[in-house]
Amino acid sequence: MKENGPDIFLREKPSKILVSLNNPSTENYASALSTQADCTYSHTVRLIKKFKELGLIETKKEGRKKIVKLTHEGEQVATNLAEVFDKLRK
Amino acid sequence: MKENGPDIFLREKPSKILVSLNNPSTENYASALSTQADCTYSHTVRLIKKFKELGLIETKKEGRKKIVKLTHEGEQVATNLAEVFDKLRK
Repeated sequence: MKENGPDIFLREKPSKILVSLNNPSTENYASALSTQADCTYSHTVRLIKKFKELGLIETKKEGRKKIVKLTHEGEQVATNLAEVFDKLRK
Repeated sequence: MKENGPDIFLREKPSKILVSLNNPSTENYASALSTQADCTYSHTVRLIKKFKELGLIETKKEGRKKIVKLTHEGEQVATNLAEVFDKLRK
């Protein structure tokens, strides 16, 4: 079925979280990202840690929140993943 | 570890098979593709069927071989996947 197209190639939750960070309207801290991607908080935190190790994001403390921001490389990967989602979801 | 970067986002075998079809030197029929992607023949055949349903490839009989060719959309998806592999594999 066409709806499940992206799932052949992409792991849904990590890909969705990275793509959503490329959207300026996204609230970019772990609890908001986990809700958007329908992912547990603890899994989201693990993914964010992994993204950071890969140089895809930077984090910065803002009060009690840890704000997540894509690096230039992270933006490029997010754009590629978004295009795969777009092309296969019709 | 950096080496496993792409695996966070991409399902390795389907993505590798599609990417390899974008390489003109690839032998583009199921048994050759399965060897390259280190994937079983039967799984490769299932993936090829799925790619065709999604409009990513066309197939054509050539003697006893069924030759697989990316469509324009398939080329675009393959290019995006290849860029994710390239950026995360360093």
